[in-house]
Amino acid sequence: MLLHIDSSADPAAASVSRRLTDLFTEVWRPLHPAADRVYRDLSADPVPPLTAAYTALGRRVERAGLVPPHKVPALIENAAEAREWELTLPLVTEVLAAETVLLGVPMYNYSVPAALKAWIDRVSFPGAFTDPDTGESLLRSTRVVAVLARGGGYGPGTPREHADHQTPYLRTYFRNLGVAEENLHLVTAELTRVDLFPHPPVLEELAAASLAAARAELTALAAGDGPAPGRVPE
Amino acid sequence: MLLHIDSSADPAAASVSRRLTDLFTEVWRPLHPAADRVYRDLSADPVPPLTAAYTALGRRVERAGLVPPHKVPALIENAAEAREWELTLPLVTEVLAAETVLLGVPMYNYSVPAALKAWIDRVSFPGAFTDPDTGESLLRSTRVVAVLARGGGYGPGTPREHADHQTPYLRTYFRNLGVAEENLHLVTAELTRVDLFPHPPVLEELAAASLAAARAELTALAAGDGPAPGRVPE
Repeated sequence: MLLHIDSSADPAAASVSRRLTDLFTEVWRPLHPAADRVYRDLSADPVPPLTAAYTALGRRVERAGLVPPHKVPALIENAAEAREWELTLPLVTEVLAAETVLLGVPMYNYSVPAALKAWIDRVSFPGAFTDPDTGESLLRSTRVVAVLARGGGYGPGTPREHADHQTPYLRTYFRNLGVAEENLHLVTAELTRVDLFPHPPVLEELAAASLAAARAELTALAAGDGPAPGRVPE
Repeated sequence: MLLHIDSSADPAAASVSRRLTDLFTEVWRPLHPAADRVYRDLSADPVPPLTAAYTALGRRVERAGLVPPHKVPALIENAAEAREWELTLPLVTEVLAAETVLLGVPMYNYSVPAALKAWIDRVSFPGAFTDPDTGESLLRSTRVVAVLARGGGYGPGTPREHADHQTPYLRTYFRNLGVAEENLHLVTAELTRVDLFPHPPVLEELAAASLAAARAELTALAAGDGPAPGRVPE
């Protein structure tokens, strides 16, 4: 199953991240005619914010040790916690069922959009992705393909490299969730909003090259071939 | 004016960040009897997610150059954009009016809570904090005091230092907003959830010492004395 998640506030016509996740899906679909695809638009259909019932239930589950999702209901103490779990379990189940999680992620204020962080905060329920018998992550062989669109330039060696809290953050998050290094693909498209400001023409060339490289990398990943030739994997 | 913003999903009884921002306010209030305090609870009263009308209006404003908030209405083209601006302007106005912005920020999944990111994404409207005549930030002399509570240990020299996307992120964000280095105070309380896991007793001592240092630092900042003696400013 392919779990395709977009988080841009923009419609596809104005969103580089949406167009790039669509490209992945278009290449992937005919190659996997029998596979399901689940789509989640975190902007059209926002994940509800956490409440105190979520954190109370989460702490009780953490204190109980390694509790798999099917044993969480036995620890629920009131209707508010039941409601929180009802909002959370479908998100967890989708991730557990996915062979590939495809994420469209524009940079908002140097990091991921609040819409994506709301999904992360809810889906990361204690124990949800841990094998209760071994303590190992259940996501070792899950492939994560995140498309990271950024209005400016934040790549290695650029002056704003250290202001990038989008790419390194998602790497930290998914590594700690147990996604294997070789299954974690962060594909960046740089300078996507270069048209908003006065700029030297060379920046348009760099933006076009970055977009073309992202498209090639995503096409190869969707076809299951790994990184595109000539592109150093991040 | 003191703008006090909390973002924990927990009530004060279970929230270290809320108790610490409350401590700041308690010390600050009698010392500033004539000053206003505005309180915003981002968990009880979430900032609405961005829509495509927000980003469309934001891009139009960016293309127009340096547009101060009072000139934004002239660029609004439809009711959806008017609604977005109506949701945004009060947040911007509060920050512009504040001498001190006090933020309570628990670490959620290695970064700031989605509730705070939703505020950041909305309040960071193009041009909102820039002097249209000089291009300089209007927040140079605004003091930002952020209280950063983290369940684990992420301080300098710890094995998880590089998983901290809470402190460095807020530093990047407020620096880029133009807050002067000497006015940006990030106060951390480490190991606040040490009770959730089996742990050696020394970690409880470290947690208590970190909390005591945070309380001393916040008390000194609220009294306007700068960092507490013996504490290296971050």
